[in-house]
Amino acid sequence: MAVMAWETEVTRINKILDGLTDQELQKETAPGRNSGHYLLGHLLAVSDGMIGLLGWEERSLKNLDAPFVSNPEKAAIEKLPVAKLRELWQSVNTRISQHIQKTSADDWFKRHNAVSDEDFAKEPHRNKLNLLINRTNHMSYHRGQLIYLTKKGE
Amino acid sequence: MAVMAWETEVTRINKILDGLTDQELQKETAPGRNSGHYLLGHLLAVSDGMIGLLGWEERSLKNLDAPFVSNPEKAAIEKLPVAKLRELWQSVNTRISQHIQKTSADDWFKRHNAVSDEDFAKEPHRNKLNLLINRTNHMSYHRGQLIYLTKKGE
Repeated sequence: MAVMAWETEVTRINKILDGLTDQELQKETAPGRNSGHYLLGHLLAVSDGMIGLLGWEERSLKNLDAPFVSNPEKAAIEKLPVAKLRELWQSVNTRISQHIQKTSADDWFKRHNAVSDEDFAKEPHRNKLNLLINRTNHMSYHRGQLIYLTKKGE
Repeated sequence: MAVMAWETEVTRINKILDGLTDQELQKETAPGRNSGHYLLGHLLAVSDGMIGLLGWEERSLKNLDAPFVSNPEKAAIEKLPVAKLRELWQSVNTRISQHIQKTSADDWFKRHNAVSDEDFAKEPHRNKLNLLINRTNHMSYHRGQLIYLTKKGE
């Protein structure tokens, strides 16, 4: 069910992205708030980070953390253009889906890489499935903002 | 883990609500978009609806569906004031927490009331836990919008 919720969330974000031109995606989601450009880079960096935290692969887009995660949008850090982010977004989600399919039920209950063996012994809920659940909520949160780039989104 | 995600989400929404005056909560989250008033009523109606769908209690706030769910904000339907919605929001969440504590692991995998016995036989993932997961994502989505009522929320 958590996997289904993840996939549903990606599908919903894709639906928004597909309905926006690159130019529309560059706009602010609300006056003075993050643009669609920043949010797409942010979601991409976080999803790429999840691939690493779940121990599936080495991260390949660590360079997106500075422009889209650890610094606010207005920081003078060069950002990959929207068109490139769209490509990478599709590719990261394809890879995540492939890894999800290969992940066994038992494996979901194992430790993820942001928690030490010692802490995991005390807090066994800090497993891979929990990370997926939290990252799904994180996507929903920003989808609520991206929808404001569409004409009638509520 | 799904229950923890729900409780975390409620806590985060409460933190936003506590930081806003009633007047601030009445503002639009972005130009031409839903106000905090509407979103709070909406979340409240949906959480009250969940109590019914999970078979915990009869719904007590069905009258909130017309102003906050089935009609857009601009519809000329009288809306309970923000102060009253805040009270009801606390009370509905307290009741949900109490019911969650009494729900057994097995019970989470039973059918919820929005799915027929027949459909549930075909789609057993449409259980109570799945409803909770989806409603948690729904809250995150609107939290991403409510945060725009705060000064620096991203």
